[in-house]
Amino acid sequence: MTTEPLRIAVVGAGIMGSDHISRIAGRITGAEVAAVVEPDATRAAAAAAGAPGAVTRSRIEDALEHDDIDAVIIATPGPFHESVLLPALDAGVDILCEKPLTPDSESSLRILEAEQKTDRPRIQVGFMRRFDEEYLQMKALIDSGDAGALLALHCAHRNPSTPPGYTETMLITDSVVHEIDVVPWLVGEPIAAVEVRKPRRNSLAPEGLREPQLVLLETASGVLADVEISVNIQFGYQVTTDAVFERSVAEIGRTSGIARWVNGAFRQAEHLTYTTRFARAYDTEVQRWVDAVRRGTIDGPSAWDGYLAAAVCEAGVSAQASGTRVEVSYVPRPAFYA
Amino acid sequence: MTTEPLRIAVVGAGIMGSDHISRIAGRITGAEVAAVVEPDATRAAAAAAGAPGAVTRSRIEDALEHDDIDAVIIATPGPFHESVLLPALDAGVDILCEKPLTPDSESSLRILEAEQKTDRPRIQVGFMRRFDEEYLQMKALIDSGDAGALLALHCAHRNPSTPPGYTETMLITDSVVHEIDVVPWLVGEPIAAVEVRKPRRNSLAPEGLREPQLVLLETASGVLADVEISVNIQFGYQVTTDAVFERSVAEIGRTSGIARWVNGAFRQAEHLTYTTRFARAYDTEVQRWVDAVRRGTIDGPSAWDGYLAAAVCEAGVSAQASGTRVEVSYVPRPAFYA
Amino acid sequence: MTTEPLRIAVVGAGIMGSDHISRIAGRITGAEVAAVVEPDATRAAAAAAGAPGAVTRSRIEDALEHDDIDAVIIATPGPFHESVLLPALDAGVDILCEKPLTPDSESSLRILEAEQKTDRPRIQVGFMRRFDEEYLQMKALIDSGDAGALLALHCAHRNPSTPPGYTETMLITDSVVHEIDVVPWLVGEPIAAVEVRKPRRNSLAPEGLREPQLVLLETASGVLADVEISVNIQFGYQVTTDAVFERSVAEIGRTSGIARWVNGAFRQAEHLTYTTRFARAYDTEVQRWVDAVRRGTIDGPSAWDGYLAAAVCEAGVSAQASGTRVEVSYVPRPAFYA
Amino acid sequence: MTTEPLRIAVVGAGIMGSDHISRIAGRITGAEVAAVVEPDATRAAAAAAGAPGAVTRSRIEDALEHDDIDAVIIATPGPFHESVLLPALDAGVDILCEKPLTPDSESSLRILEAEQKTDRPRIQVGFMRRFDEEYLQMKALIDSGDAGALLALHCAHRNPSTPPGYTETMLITDSVVHEIDVVPWLVGEPIAAVEVRKPRRNSLAPEGLREPQLVLLETASGVLADVEISVNIQFGYQVTTDAVFERSVAEIGRTSGIARWVNGAFRQAEHLTYTTRFARAYDTEVQRWVDAVRRGTIDGPSAWDGYLAAAVCEAGVSAQASGTRVEVSYVPRPAFYA
Repeated sequence: MTTEPLRIAVVGAGIMGSDHISRIAGRITGAEVAAVVEPDATRAAAAAAGAPGAVTRSRIEDALEHDDIDAVIIATPGPFHESVLLPALDAGVDILCEKPLTPDSESSLRILEAEQKTDRPRIQVGFMRRFDEEYLQMKALIDSGDAGALLALHCAHRNPSTPPGYTETMLITDSVVHEIDVVPWLVGEPIAAVEVRKPRRNSLAPEGLREPQLVLLETASGVLADVEISVNIQFGYQVTTDAVFERSVAEIGRTSGIARWVNGAFRQAEHLTYTTRFARAYDTEVQRWVDAVRRGTIDGPSAWDGYLAAAVCEAGVSAQASGTRVEVSYVPRPAFYA
Repeated sequence: MTTEPLRIAVVGAGIMGSDHISRIAGRITGAEVAAVVEPDATRAAAAAAGAPGAVTRSRIEDALEHDDIDAVIIATPGPFHESVLLPALDAGVDILCEKPLTPDSESSLRILEAEQKTDRPRIQVGFMRRFDEEYLQMKALIDSGDAGALLALHCAHRNPSTPPGYTETMLITDSVVHEIDVVPWLVGEPIAAVEVRKPRRNSLAPEGLREPQLVLLETASGVLADVEISVNIQFGYQVTTDAVFERSVAEIGRTSGIARWVNGAFRQAEHLTYTTRFARAYDTEVQRWVDAVRRGTIDGPSAWDGYLAAAVCEAGVSAQASGTRVEVSYVPRPAFYA
Repeated sequence: MTTEPLRIAVVGAGIMGSDHISRIAGRITGAEVAAVVEPDATRAAAAAAGAPGAVTRSRIEDALEHDDIDAVIIATPGPFHESVLLPALDAGVDILCEKPLTPDSESSLRILEAEQKTDRPRIQVGFMRRFDEEYLQMKALIDSGDAGALLALHCAHRNPSTPPGYTETMLITDSVVHEIDVVPWLVGEPIAAVEVRKPRRNSLAPEGLREPQLVLLETASGVLADVEISVNIQFGYQVTTDAVFERSVAEIGRTSGIARWVNGAFRQAEHLTYTTRFARAYDTEVQRWVDAVRRGTIDGPSAWDGYLAAAVCEAGVSAQASGTRVEVSYVPRPAFYA
Repeated sequence: MTTEPLRIAVVGAGIMGSDHISRIAGRITGAEVAAVVEPDATRAAAAAAGAPGAVTRSRIEDALEHDDIDAVIIATPGPFHESVLLPALDAGVDILCEKPLTPDSESSLRILEAEQKTDRPRIQVGFMRRFDEEYLQMKALIDSGDAGALLALHCAHRNPSTPPGYTETMLITDSVVHEIDVVPWLVGEPIAAVEVRKPRRNSLAPEGLREPQLVLLETASGVLADVEISVNIQFGYQVTTDAVFERSVAEIGRTSGIARWVNGAFRQAEHLTYTTRFARAYDTEVQRWVDAVRRGTIDGPSAWDGYLAAAVCEAGVSAQASGTRVEVSYVPRPAFYA
């Protein structure tokens, strides 16, 4: 393990990129932001201001060439990931890529191909829930077998409101994609089929957006996860999972923190956004990734997991349109990802 | 309103019948057990011992003829209900009939026909959840519109274990039948279609019983209720409902009562059986029924509601077998039940 | 046991008396309101309207003489209790007397004397907390010894606001009197000493009322109960008790019922008044008292308990004035109350 | 601000020292462990193994002389603090000193004197609760005035068991010392008087240790904090604070995390030790201290706060022995600590 800090290029200086920059500068040990890659110069400069010593670049290629980069964090929108992933793989650096790996399975397969030309898995995908303390406790309970076999999961994924441009397919590809990653991780086997059901429409959703929806994910051995996705529910941001075992039920994702009795009620604040709900998960994810990269490995979901999610999302979008059960098929798993 | 106590014949001296007998004798005002009707003489005597002044009879006809009966509570198994309902209707007395009204819609229609020959609705069906304080709070919240329109419900119905003879169709007809009654009551409209999905099987269930199951109930306007039915989950008896509104989520059915910190954990007792979970709902149901009967009316689900539940159960059993979405159809509602 | 309903005279038709009248008429089996005793004729008539068959009387003596009374419920203010208790004892009827038995220990001793001239304890005092389900669970836990010996109690007793005329001594005699009864009952031994401490004053209290206060009750074996009494805390009505055992902590009195997520918060309603908080305790108290009286006994705190509370209240008021620890002394317990 | 990492000497390689070493090596940005100072060479080597590049020293003077130290963390027992504080102040480095500053007010005053000879406050005392997220939310609520003025606090501080050598005075000086720091911080004014009450003794405490105790802390304006200190309560480690405001009550310190229903109960794990309960508070404390030191300041309780706590502890020990209310007096606050 090198004792030198990891020199990271953060690509994209939007909310998530800026969040990563302040995280690395302020709370992560063993790493520093060497470059902020962002075509919008004003935004780049603003983001870089919080990272002493960081340069700004408009193209990833420039950073890779000039800035002695060890690793890249990709925080641009999904459609732009491939154009950063390929040169970064080519340069032989490590990569933490925000979800999704790419927007579809075909492009994800291209990434797998490119990565397999390198010496070892270089890409970790930013499914941060795997680093949330309660999800980790849930996984430990499942793996322990203490409660008997896992039979079913009830998931709820709720956002107060949608940004402009949010479409019905994004319910799957942008939101449920988190459950699409975390359910197989919890269960320990891939998703075999998807169905979508559409309850009564929320009139507070923007015109043309039919939500909430109920997505049924079925794993190979038959564990059935129902996922309620609600994205204009106003009251807050909430992600919960109830697990039904043979002799127990477990739940995660409840509100905690200071409680008050006021105006005739007991009251505890709920989260309003994912950045606070998963603040610690992001910190843990990045610290563990930095530590792993310095040891020469990754420590989280791989590009293969990114591909799996892309394949399930495609099936999910198809199920959303057809109303039928859609089975998911995958290419064989390369030994490289064993 | 008569000031004389209502003279009740309780038919069936099993667990539920005995429970009603001790309830009326010990906690209900304005009523008394006049007769215990039960062919098993030993059981009849044991049950009647708790009700001072009650005679025992082996047939309902004898009680109706000799005991100056004002009302009948039917607590025999469902297949025997019709043979008590018809003579009781004939005798012009009031009836509280434990669920289900009858085991199928055809026999339920026969009951509706017989009842319509009387002066007014005489039958109340024992769907006690409508009298549970939290269900009533949920209904009030839905009706108030404070949280926006109701869009979806997540229900869980869990039993520690099944009695001998419990079959897969009973998941619908004996257990989910409660949600089949209470969901339309909450939503304010009938169930239009049913689907059933089968997660991984609980190995603790008796051989041949495939459970848990996930039952999807869809109402006319599209409110979608998913109901997890688990009947060998060991840990306790639990009935919960989460309601998803346009701008809020509400939940009922959580454990309460004395809490302890002991052996490294916070701990609160969960119910082990429906008799404690719904003890107060049963008391309220019976007291309100007694009060209503003395005023010359009923105050709860009618025989028509019993018929609706029977029709949905039939669709549910069909959906359970076929794996497909089964629409429910009903006969037109007679003006008698308006 | 008689099968005739108990004929009860309810004395006092204020909030509590009216509450008892509708309770007996609507939810209690084996009893009926035979007379409403209240000097204010309008109020008497209004209260009696809810109890079919009840006459109104302006004096208890009239009811005892003319109405074939079996038992009396006293719901007048404390200073008027003695003038009802004495003739009722004289008439040999049973009595449920709202707390306090009388306002001071001297008058309570007079009641004990009068009662001892009757055949058996005839008076039950209306400390309803002993019938609250959670208090009963707490008592069972203490008595079981499962958690080790009980060492300390933390009690909170909070009211939203005070009625006109509420004075500082009433913090003890009207409010903490409930803990003064329930603490010895929980612990199983009398209170030996009292201290009072006065935190910063609530500016929302009426002028001249110094509250909240912290009352320390010490039992014979050294169990120490601290009682926060707050009577203008606005947010609601709340009564909690945390028990500290040798190897566990237990708590009662937390909010329950339907929960909502709304406007960025998890929310559960808190009680606003004792009538809802202890609604079931009152029902249980009265039903068990009716049942006991019909068996020829009482089933709850006796006049002796009423005297003990009066003696502790006197010590408490003295401690409140002096700021010192005040020991409590009692007359020897008559065998009549063994 | 320097961009070089802060070079820290950690003094003491026991549980707390080792914890700080792995924290700095693994989770804190901007700092590195340059030296581990510990007379026990084996223990020193073991602790240093987790910090790449750290040397081991048996005396602080050696580290200060040879290792280019910027700052010192003192994690030895309290009686040894002075002998590290003085040379470190002399060397002009920054210091994070675990609580207590020193064991008594006289020695604390010597430290204040020595510190005032330096350019600015150099010492931060390790009262980590001020960095716990819930305590911070409580402080924010108090400071906001939203709930009205703060009137009283109910604190509980519970440990499963005591280490060998734990004495009755340590209830104050080792345990309640945390509340003695945090109560004035929350209230915004110093503690004016202390009383101690002793409930029934826990028979599970080692012979000669009389506990639990109830410590009453009174601030200048009359806010009254009662602190239950229990140190052999077996079930777990628990620190809670309930705040009583004029129109609200708030509470912190409740269990959270994954919940399970199992064996007839709802169950959530409670902490067993302070290292998990306050894990994040320690991380936050150290990160904020590192950040502050790099900016040339401190960011937490000062040596003055350490002196105040020492003075209150002395009064508390006196109150523990006498059973009376003991007022606390302080030397005037030097302008240096304004």
